[in-house]
Amino acid sequence: MPRYTAPTKDMQFILHDLLKVSESTIPGYGELEADFTSAVLEEAGKLTSEVLAPLNVTGDKEGCRLENGVVYTPAGFKDAFAKVKEGGWTGLDMPEQYGGQNMPAVLGSAVGELFSGSNMAFTMYQGLTHGAASAILAHGTETQKDKWLPNMVSCEWTGTMNLTEPHCGTDLGLMRTKAEPQADGSYKITGQKIFISSGEHDMADNIVHLVLAKITDGPAGIKGVSLFIVPKVMVNEDGSLGVRNGATVGSIEEKMGIHGNSTCVMNYDNATGYLLGDEHKGMRAMFTMMNEARLGVGMQGLSQAEAAYQNALDYANDRLQGRAVTGIQNLEGPADPLIVHPDIRRSLMEQKSFVEGARAFILWGATMIDAAHRADDKDADGLVSLLTPVIKGFLTDLGYDMTVKAQQIYGGHGYIEEWGMSQFTRDARIAMIYEGANGVQALDLVGRKLAQDGGKHVMAFFDMVKTFIKDNAGQDEAYDKDFIEPLKAASKDLQAAGMYFMQNGMSNPNHALAGSNDFMHMFGHVCLGLMWARMGKVSSDTLAAGTDDATFYETKLATGRFYMARQLPATALHLTRIQSGSDTVMALDAANF
Amino acid sequence: MPRYTAPTKDMQFILHDLLKVSESTIPGYGELEADFTSAVLEEAGKLTSEVLAPLNVTGDKEGCRLENGVVYTPAGFKDAFAKVKEGGWTGLDMPEQYGGQNMPAVLGSAVGELFSGSNMAFTMYQGLTHGAASAILAHGTETQKDKWLPNMVSCEWTGTMNLTEPHCGTDLGLMRTKAEPQADGSYKITGQKIFISSGEHDMADNIVHLVLAKITDGPAGIKGVSLFIVPKVMVNEDGSLGVRNGATVGSIEEKMGIHGNSTCVMNYDNATGYLLGDEHKGMRAMFTMMNEARLGVGMQGLSQAEAAYQNALDYANDRLQGRAVTGIQNLEGPADPLIVHPDIRRSLMEQKSFVEGARAFILWGATMIDAAHRADDKDADGLVSLLTPVIKGFLTDLGYDMTVKAQQIYGGHGYIEEWGMSQFTRDARIAMIYEGANGVQALDLVGRKLAQDGGKHVMAFFDMVKTFIKDNAGQDEAYDKDFIEPLKAASKDLQAAGMYFMQNGMSNPNHALAGSNDFMHMFGHVCLGLMWARMGKVSSDTLAAGTDDATFYETKLATGRFYMARQLPATALHLTRIQSGSDTVMALDAANF
Repeated sequence: MPRYTAPTKDMQFILHDLLKVSESTIPGYGELEADFTSAVLEEAGKLTSEVLAPLNVTGDKEGCRLENGVVYTPAGFKDAFAKVKEGGWTGLDMPEQYGGQNMPAVLGSAVGELFSGSNMAFTMYQGLTHGAASAILAHGTETQKDKWLPNMVSCEWTGTMNLTEPHCGTDLGLMRTKAEPQADGSYKITGQKIFISSGEHDMADNIVHLVLAKITDGPAGIKGVSLFIVPKVMVNEDGSLGVRNGATVGSIEEKMGIHGNSTCVMNYDNATGYLLGDEHKGMRAMFTMMNEARLGVGMQGLSQAEAAYQNALDYANDRLQGRAVTGIQNLEGPADPLIVHPDIRRSLMEQKSFVEGARAFILWGATMIDAAHRADDKDADGLVSLLTPVIKGFLTDLGYDMTVKAQQIYGGHGYIEEWGMSQFTRDARIAMIYEGANGVQALDLVGRKLAQDGGKHVMAFFDMVKTFIKDNAGQDEAYDKDFIEPLKAASKDLQAAGMYFMQNGMSNPNHALAGSNDFMHMFGHVCLGLMWARMGKVSSDTLAAGTDDATFYETKLATGRFYMARQLPATALHLTRIQSGSDTVMALDAANF
Repeated sequence: MPRYTAPTKDMQFILHDLLKVSESTIPGYGELEADFTSAVLEEAGKLTSEVLAPLNVTGDKEGCRLENGVVYTPAGFKDAFAKVKEGGWTGLDMPEQYGGQNMPAVLGSAVGELFSGSNMAFTMYQGLTHGAASAILAHGTETQKDKWLPNMVSCEWTGTMNLTEPHCGTDLGLMRTKAEPQADGSYKITGQKIFISSGEHDMADNIVHLVLAKITDGPAGIKGVSLFIVPKVMVNEDGSLGVRNGATVGSIEEKMGIHGNSTCVMNYDNATGYLLGDEHKGMRAMFTMMNEARLGVGMQGLSQAEAAYQNALDYANDRLQGRAVTGIQNLEGPADPLIVHPDIRRSLMEQKSFVEGARAFILWGATMIDAAHRADDKDADGLVSLLTPVIKGFLTDLGYDMTVKAQQIYGGHGYIEEWGMSQFTRDARIAMIYEGANGVQALDLVGRKLAQDGGKHVMAFFDMVKTFIKDNAGQDEAYDKDFIEPLKAASKDLQAAGMYFMQNGMSNPNHALAGSNDFMHMFGHVCLGLMWARMGKVSSDTLAAGTDDATFYETKLATGRFYMARQLPATALHLTRIQSGSDTVMALDAANF
């Protein structure tokens, strides 16, 4: 069975060496001293390694089952969920007013990676609840917040998001679910929703569904969509649970992975719902949830890559096969371990440099969310909005690729379910699809975010890279060669791509959109390149100042050099593709494919 | 349920427009006139679309089950196998002497793609039999051939290959299975083999296992390995079946995919075996099977990409979602089909240009096998030996990526087993692993094949590209720009990589091996680039000469242009990685990962 070990040391490095969170002026960051975050991460690491990880393979094997309208989660999930709730983990970054601990998102994200890495399917029950609670927090009335949030923060009640219908996913304007206004101000919701993660299960007393629907006689298309709170069980005035609402599970889907999470077809049949936010402004309210969810999904991509990498590394060290081409290394053994082989190392270094770079990227993104929410920093808000599709799309595409690489190291054993490596790829696969398929992320980035606020945020990003280069170049020849030059080249590629879009996208938007996927990927590489350049700098400075832990910082530098030399240059290929325009992409009539 | 339609028109184009098989002097090629190959492909297409394809999803769902030592294949497999045998498909390219039809490998490969594309797990039963029969054909005595081949050619008996043991896969020198010589010249085989595809099942009266084992007191390591014929049921002098041999299935593996094929743990307990080929020369005999199998596995990669692409294309045409950015295209509908969106087209073009290029590459490879076997062409033999790891490694890596892209077009529906798109990725995944994991293919290419016969074959390859460019450049400006220039650039990259290995690999072989995976991929791209340049030329010539089917040839040209502009330039990135050397790859001590 695969192991999961919390990468707490790397997280501490990112939080304190790189981001220096406890020195930040963002409200709440003062508390994040190294001892404190270490204690939190160690505690979360223990719970996730010991309680959640062992349920990952068994949850995959057993899956969820539906019997007479009740969904049963896999054996052990209920007890584990109780432990997660007891530990107060579900409300870590939620307001104290509703029972949370009010920790910054940066710590919530680090802890979230541990949960997701140890058991992604399980963690989705609390993840969806967090997203639904955030939407109520942002758009609910005081009465609604008081009514729903305390039980959601504690996960006594869980939450869901209901967008997709059989005939519409991305294009929500085609939605058919109806909301009929009632005399008491509530609505009757009728329709079918599909792909509802955690839609029904046996781990909570109530489920709070957030449902997009069209109010009768409202505007057509996306402008007529509103968001509703639709509980599974009605809640009485005194907060006690009442009768069942008309929200029932139709079936559960058989999926490629995340078998431990119940993906439901939900039927709403005159179910009572309460408007959340303004009439016909459902998309705006839903986007609070979506943006948070997109960052969380990017983190899932990283988390599965990390978990798969840990096990691939163990296998590469344990499995004896062949001899090192430069001379026998394991003299007493019948063969050398796999890790002596250059192509195995190449794969392991790709994985290692990805997960460590991605972790820095995500936690850096979380500091921007904190700056936006806690310090009303509009620039941070704009930048993280620009980077959200990159975090979601790039990190899940690459995260999936990394799980495939990790699986490959096992040879035939990687294909056998017994070893658990197939599950990482099957679970990671969904992250490229849900919360907006990655093609939609690329479209959001190129079609919307680039030009947002007059292109201000992308300019700020380029300025940030330029300033970093200016501040750190010319001090150390080796650092310049290994980090500054590759970052400069990649950033130049990204700017050239942006320029190509500006010059050609006006006359024909296809010239921009045909390159959207490439642009998202090159943007992701530049972000990871910036992270590695920053981590390289900090490591190099620490070594120069003297440290007891030189091996750790030297390893960081070596891992960064690998990324800069081998992975970051992908930007040039993406640029070539983008600059080839859309003619070859759009040449064929649909009938001639 | 997914559809499968035989791509016979494209195959006819490759066979007759591109390869001009019926004009070839290779013995047997004269028969391959367009009407004949068309009739064969149409017939095979009918069988595969109507009989095998419908069993693909059901076979995946049901899987194989083991009960009291008997393996039951999924419902319908037995009847379908009977139809395949009745049609004489199993012996298409086998000698007439043993009941085959003696068709060239190029036709066998084309038909093989149809079988594999419609149902990969099912087709493996006959595929393994073909490989085992080829090994007996090449290394067996006349008596052995007469005894085993007729029933294997007809698939009354099926075959297997037994290499892997729990502790050794690639490194077969570690093997523990023993062969004890008996007074009558036979051997008693004892040991355990794992991952034995088609190891036990209910579709044939007998199973002929080819088993690698070490003869007692033979040389240590790989030099002491011999190959044995070990039947499931003993065969009497008169050819009738006798008693059960000591070859039994221990268990069947639960796998990520190819559920319809029984992957067995095989236990040999004093089983009677007959030496095939020479004592201690088992690897040589096994390689006959392996090389054939590697080409077949490359074809599996293509076949799954083709099947997945067909369905992704249907979905992109059917599913209405969003509007074209350049203006509404489906005025009567509530939305435009997915195929209007540039990023969806980008993905479809990647798939289309890959499958058509890969098909040309494989069939071109098959003509070299025919030239080697039928016309004793040593150059062709050397070239296909060089290209075998490229066909296996590149086409299965890319084939898998393409199934992931196809699945992605379905959005959430791609993740649900109901639609069948997950199966294509799960099935295609194994092709990157078995018959030598792709890292081993890359090692074979760079560590062995490049230098084979003094580097003669790789020089011949470069000469071939150079000659093609010389013969076809400078006649048509558009063709030069779209095809010749990209091919020239990619080929130059490949040569530069080879040069880097020569200059640096001697002093430190890690400098070559750290780039082996990149080299395999760039070599694959150059091969597909060459195929596209040739197909582009032939299409352009046909259009110039006038044709009734101009749309077909224009589509070919457009698809080729896409490949040359967007995919082939990947060689530059691979070259950058290779030229970065092995320092960043090998920097870390194993303990510091």
